[in-house]
Amino acid sequence: VRYTLASDGGEPAESRARRIALEQTVELPEGCYPREIERDVVGRVEAVDQQSSGRSVVTVSYPVDLVGTEIPALLNIIWGNISMQSGIVVSDIELPRRVLDEVVGPRFGLEGVRQICGGITHRPLVMSAAKPVGLSAAALAERCATLARGGIDAVKDDHGVMDQRTAPFRERVRRCHDAVAEANVLTGGATQYFPNVTAPLDEIDDRVAFALEVGCRGVVVSPFLTGLDALRRVADSSDLAVFTHPTSAGGIMQRDHGVAPPVLLGTLLRVLGADGVIYVNAGGRFPVTESECVEINRRLTAPIEGIRASLPIPGGGVDVNTVSHWVSRYGVDVMLLIGSSLYVQADLEDATKQLMHVLEQPTDG
Amino acid sequence: VRYTLASDGGEPAESRARRIALEQTVELPEGCYPREIERDVVGRVEAVDQQSSGRSVVTVSYPVDLVGTEIPALLNIIWGNISMQSGIVVSDIELPRRVLDEVVGPRFGLEGVRQICGGITHRPLVMSAAKPVGLSAAALAERCATLARGGIDAVKDDHGVMDQRTAPFRERVRRCHDAVAEANVLTGGATQYFPNVTAPLDEIDDRVAFALEVGCRGVVVSPFLTGLDALRRVADSSDLAVFTHPTSAGGIMQRDHGVAPPVLLGTLLRVLGADGVIYVNAGGRFPVTESECVEINRRLTAPIEGIRASLPIPGGGVDVNTVSHWVSRYGVDVMLLIGSSLYVQADLEDATKQLMHVLEQPTDG
Repeated sequence: VRYTLASDGGEPAESRARRIALEQTVELPEGCYPREIERDVVGRVEAVDQQSSGRSVVTVSYPVDLVGTEIPALLNIIWGNISMQSGIVVSDIELPRRVLDEVVGPRFGLEGVRQICGGITHRPLVMSAAKPVGLSAAALAERCATLARGGIDAVKDDHGVMDQRTAPFRERVRRCHDAVAEANVLTGGATQYFPNVTAPLDEIDDRVAFALEVGCRGVVVSPFLTGLDALRRVADSSDLAVFTHPTSAGGIMQRDHGVAPPVLLGTLLRVLGADGVIYVNAGGRFPVTESECVEINRRLTAPIEGIRASLPIPGGGVDVNTVSHWVSRYGVDVMLLIGSSLYVQADLEDATKQLMHVLEQPTDG
Repeated sequence: VRYTLASDGGEPAESRARRIALEQTVELPEGCYPREIERDVVGRVEAVDQQSSGRSVVTVSYPVDLVGTEIPALLNIIWGNISMQSGIVVSDIELPRRVLDEVVGPRFGLEGVRQICGGITHRPLVMSAAKPVGLSAAALAERCATLARGGIDAVKDDHGVMDQRTAPFRERVRRCHDAVAEANVLTGGATQYFPNVTAPLDEIDDRVAFALEVGCRGVVVSPFLTGLDALRRVADSSDLAVFTHPTSAGGIMQRDHGVAPPVLLGTLLRVLGADGVIYVNAGGRFPVTESECVEINRRLTAPIEGIRASLPIPGGGVDVNTVSHWVSRYGVDVMLLIGSSLYVQADLEDATKQLMHVLEQPTDG
């Protein structure tokens, strides 16, 4: 684990690194443990790089036996008790081969999701959301149908749409799926509907099973609401593509203390099995830079032996006027999540058609 | 939900409050939704208080139907997409009666845990941890026995101790439980051992069942590793007291952006069913103030109709010299978690005895 440390009252970086290595393992002061524990258990400070900015970058390695194959243990090693300190950013992680060998990773991944969405490979895929929460299942289904008639590749439930009495899960999923299927017959398209299965733990399996039964090919989970291990479980145990929504992740990704977005959303969610990862794009309603987004994309797609690439899904900041910019910036191996910029227009179907038309044009990039 | 907002480039607090109300519900720009959605779904700005410090405190209410009885939906409303913005602190929440009526809350609570720990009511209870991770099950059991012989009220697994091959869960839990039971026979005491059941979701139920089978009366869960709903599930479905450890919570509790510790650890964990809540105490290795700790204690114990009080468990910063201070500051309705200050001493049993002796003395407070 690589930590970027803010300068802290003159304490040398070596000393802070050593304190992290103790806090994340034995949780005891220096030396208050048997000698073999020092050798086999305490994190090892591998590198210390004092930077001219006053920050330092330190690398600490941990014994793989502390983690085994358990995701909660992995999270605890990466971002456990030190989360309650300050000025520490987890800026990189390198997972040992034994962990990578034991996780399943994305079952479909970037290529698989492309297949699910009609085999389109020459342009980015486009996703939108049926919203807002509070509409009836019938009204949400009509929004799905409208977006499908506009030629969008995928429609998901808005992440706040769960099992409200205005649109109970089962009724909604059946209606939305069927509405999209009917629109596909009309258009000859292959639009997909992905329901949100974020739910109490006792319910998630049933909702995933229902989505599969109805004919959906993928589902959406918000792992920072359910816990990250619920993502791993849904991804491992279902034949559905899994898309993650980042709601509630922001606290963990603070710039001066947290887990850097590319590590959390790029490396970790991919390893846990996300086939597609929604993240907040630069240029939208959230403070994030383009280069961070490029780095998330890189981590989701760079080769890792035995782990498929995940599909990056930047959301926000994309409309009919800026879409060419994002294609030239990110390439075609992304799915653009476009919500508000379609909904602000008078005719949702027409707005979607215009956007999809622009995407079919060759770009300068 | 009450939000404390940092001043932000001159945008009026009313406008920021309205943006929060939209972001956390419809996720659409102003007006891009049917009129009845404005009435029934969009968060309502109830109060705006511009403070002289430049900060403002705004109150937004949300329709209870958006949450229903689902914890992930509750978290999403309190700290969802806005987590990815900046300068927002959730400084208070008031849960509607309908939510409070539908949660179980702590099954044992403060009084129940006192009963489990031998019915002691005249002084704070004391907990320690068997550590460090990496020791064998036999060695951890010996630490449990030593602490029990010293007269401690409760021993828990260190939060990093899960199912490592050095001390597999079942072997460890049986040995530690039995070692404490044997020590109790010797001393006539009622020391309890609480194993850590933080685990992959597929495993938690089995581990809880095993703890019960072996004879444990409580377990420890780290809800910020498992997901908060796993706490609710363990608390609701088992006959064991549940203690929470705050590892990995720190990112969410940042001072300038996050959920304030008293709200997260006090109100929420109690409502979710924690019988005892471990938090980092002032004066220890983490940046936290005494007044924050007092406020956490207050929220864990203040009367809420239908919801038992939880036992506050401050950890860190307590040793034989400072324990009287903490008793006078917090009163007796806490369990003091004392680890390192016992382990640094040459004789763990003797150190424990001394501490328990001091606690039996009348304090000035």
